[in-house]
Amino acid sequence: MTQTFVSVDRHLLGLKDLGPDEIRSILDRAAYWEQQPNKVTPLLNGKFVANMFFENSTRTRFSFEVAEKRLGCEVLNFAAAASSVEKGESIYDTVRTLESMGIDAGVIRMKPIGLLAELATKIQVPLINAGDGNNEHPTQALLDFYTMRKHFGDIRGLTVSIIGDIQHSRVARSNLWGLLKLGAKVQFCAPKNMQAPELAAYAPYVEMEQALQADVVMMLRVQLERHEKGMLSSAEEYREHYGLTVERAARMQPHAIIMHPAPINRNVEIDDELVECDKSKIFTQMAHGVPIRMAVVERAMQ
Amino acid sequence: MTQTFVSVDRHLLGLKDLGPDEIRSILDRAAYWEQQPNKVTPLLNGKFVANMFFENSTRTRFSFEVAEKRLGCEVLNFAAAASSVEKGESIYDTVRTLESMGIDAGVIRMKPIGLLAELATKIQVPLINAGDGNNEHPTQALLDFYTMRKHFGDIRGLTVSIIGDIQHSRVARSNLWGLLKLGAKVQFCAPKNMQAPELAAYAPYVEMEQALQADVVMMLRVQLERHEKGMLSSAEEYREHYGLTVERAARMQPHAIIMHPAPINRNVEIDDELVECDKSKIFTQMAHGVPIRMAVVERAMQ
Amino acid sequence: MTQTFVSVDRHLLGLKDLGPDEIRSILDRAAYWEQQPNKVTPLLNGKFVANMFFENSTRTRFSFEVAEKRLGCEVLNFAAAASSVEKGESIYDTVRTLESMGIDAGVIRMKPIGLLAELATKIQVPLINAGDGNNEHPTQALLDFYTMRKHFGDIRGLTVSIIGDIQHSRVARSNLWGLLKLGAKVQFCAPKNMQAPELAAYAPYVEMEQALQADVVMMLRVQLERHEKGMLSSAEEYREHYGLTVERAARMQPHAIIMHPAPINRNVEIDDELVECDKSKIFTQMAHGVPIRMAVVERAMQ
Repeated sequence: MTQTFVSVDRHLLGLKDLGPDEIRSILDRAAYWEQQPNKVTPLLNGKFVANMFFENSTRTRFSFEVAEKRLGCEVLNFAAAASSVEKGESIYDTVRTLESMGIDAGVIRMKPIGLLAELATKIQVPLINAGDGNNEHPTQALLDFYTMRKHFGDIRGLTVSIIGDIQHSRVARSNLWGLLKLGAKVQFCAPKNMQAPELAAYAPYVEMEQALQADVVMMLRVQLERHEKGMLSSAEEYREHYGLTVERAARMQPHAIIMHPAPINRNVEIDDELVECDKSKIFTQMAHGVPIRMAVVERAMQ
Repeated sequence: MTQTFVSVDRHLLGLKDLGPDEIRSILDRAAYWEQQPNKVTPLLNGKFVANMFFENSTRTRFSFEVAEKRLGCEVLNFAAAASSVEKGESIYDTVRTLESMGIDAGVIRMKPIGLLAELATKIQVPLINAGDGNNEHPTQALLDFYTMRKHFGDIRGLTVSIIGDIQHSRVARSNLWGLLKLGAKVQFCAPKNMQAPELAAYAPYVEMEQALQADVVMMLRVQLERHEKGMLSSAEEYREHYGLTVERAARMQPHAIIMHPAPINRNVEIDDELVECDKSKIFTQMAHGVPIRMAVVERAMQ
Repeated sequence: MTQTFVSVDRHLLGLKDLGPDEIRSILDRAAYWEQQPNKVTPLLNGKFVANMFFENSTRTRFSFEVAEKRLGCEVLNFAAAASSVEKGESIYDTVRTLESMGIDAGVIRMKPIGLLAELATKIQVPLINAGDGNNEHPTQALLDFYTMRKHFGDIRGLTVSIIGDIQHSRVARSNLWGLLKLGAKVQFCAPKNMQAPELAAYAPYVEMEQALQADVVMMLRVQLERHEKGMLSSAEEYREHYGLTVERAARMQPHAIIMHPAPINRNVEIDDELVECDKSKIFTQMAHGVPIRMAVVERAMQ
């Protein structure tokens, strides 16, 4: 295979340690795949990819599966709930097991933070992070960048507001690390109990009205059950203070866009009427997930 | 692809709105597929089909999966239990998500009645109904027609008795609408609490002894837990009054056949000894499901 | 297809009824598959295999799936938890259903003992036992033999100690029947409440220190919850008396190897530090599972 990508590290653990050229090479390759007239290529025929989801997922798992099948790979789907992980088998043993069976790459989602970096030192096959705890979700951020670049032409100079549960969000972190490298400005907006203080050095926390003035207004899924009672503990209260309502969206700039990694809580963090409005890129983001993941899987096996 | 089918609507939502020529064209195409010596054709190579089952299924899901793979499709299997639907993602969002990822057709099963027709107006890719609430289950009825036509030569003039829980049965409804169009006579037999009064204008309710005199005796799966206690609430009582027992089967006409959409409650609606008796077409029906679904999936993508 | 295998019975229900030449022909064919430079062959293109797991599995199911895909088969995965088996459909009905849909072979795992032999008389397609109750798990034993033969050159004359819950172990039984045919000596080591008295005529029960002197020390997974309280009922107590600790492993012969069918309870039946030590063949066994299952699936369809 010709050298399409910059890096020689075939893992994709996060964007924090990826250079801007490497990020751009992935976006460029995704553009190539998006333009292909044929859905399926024999490029990776005979290669096995295992999707190992130790945490529930619909969207991300199917997006990877479509990407892998479009590249001609054989696909193995592992979901923790239907497996012996429940009877005490560790994540490591499962990954080593699939490695022993001859997989060529692994896509992995899991809850424990820090485990992925450790796994990557022990496993020979390239690993692609599909979300690890609240640490990183690099392919989600890459498809977000792809969507921004396609809409605005360039990411440099954009202001991106990320609104919601920053503390628990791997999407916020991967977007933060990547957007700073690509020359965008990031600002957060979140209630006190959903802020991540350790990120304040990289992106300021702003008020809702200021957040609405950005080029990109990115709403995060909120899981109210994760937080202490008493602080915006009802969906109505959350929507009133931090939801993207129809009224608030009307105050956004004319050229600005709405993004959301999904799944969506309609009428909590975003009003139902906005999900498919003209400004919204939500289903466009999902469509871009496939060529991004094609680029990432191809890169893992180059 | 050449024009094999009559209709230009590529959805298959139900048989109520399908013309008799359209039904016959599907049966004819299934006959073509059943006769092919090679199991797998490259006809739909590069096409993606998503099987989206928001309600449990073994038989129907595998039947579609075999059909899709025999046509050369790439198959995505979504089952609600293993997905984020549980955390509140709506059926619509899941279907739109898979559509965004570039599927070419969707097979869908769900509980809510009426939602499918609404979905079909919002989703661009063709949708195939694999069972929606108690509304319709068109591919089951089509494979039933295929089985009747193959056995009797013609459906016109046949008398078909459908026995059991008519009220909750999408199989009964799809059979009713299709059989009337094809010139058969339909009669129902059910205890009072399992009758669907709104269907009485199309098919009379008859006594068990009369029902047994039909050309086709189609037993429905009964789920006693769905019904009020006190009315045939035990399996034994149900079998005594409405089960196809060995004794009752002996009173059927010599040329008549037994059908059942499965899964079967052995010794409730049908005696164990009858499941694979000479008159029974139950596993033959399952075998016919594959070519019928090949025809339906092909039609969706023509 | 050329005649590669000795037998004309294409089922693989267990090793008890398989001759030594038949076992060796499977090992030889696995060696052929292990040496193939290309991962995927079109050999069985167009053939459908159903993996029907009525009992949970990660390792065995994926090992079969990789093997089947490397042979070019279309794969259907059935897992009981995600199916209508829960609502009373019998194992027989499910297998007959998949047979009706045209599968060419079935891989099956189930709890009930004795049912598989009965199924094999009623089902026309070849069935491969992927574990039935505590009866047999022939492909696990075959990959164990493959691992021993590859390491020692020949199985004849080896002494193999199987240590742990013999009573509940299908792995122990399949190893016993096969190893005796191949000329090895088998000895068991187990606490009283985990012994299988009916096997004592074929293999003696020995003390732990003697068991450690074998050429192969095969540890079994222990499930303490299966046993009466009071007898080695804690993990610590079990490890103290029957675990392969670092200290005990140091007393093994220099040329001897450690085996385990996995999944592993680390620090119960085997110390964490030993799982990937030089003597351990645990992940090598898993790697060998794929060519063994390729040979077995190919044999079923010859």
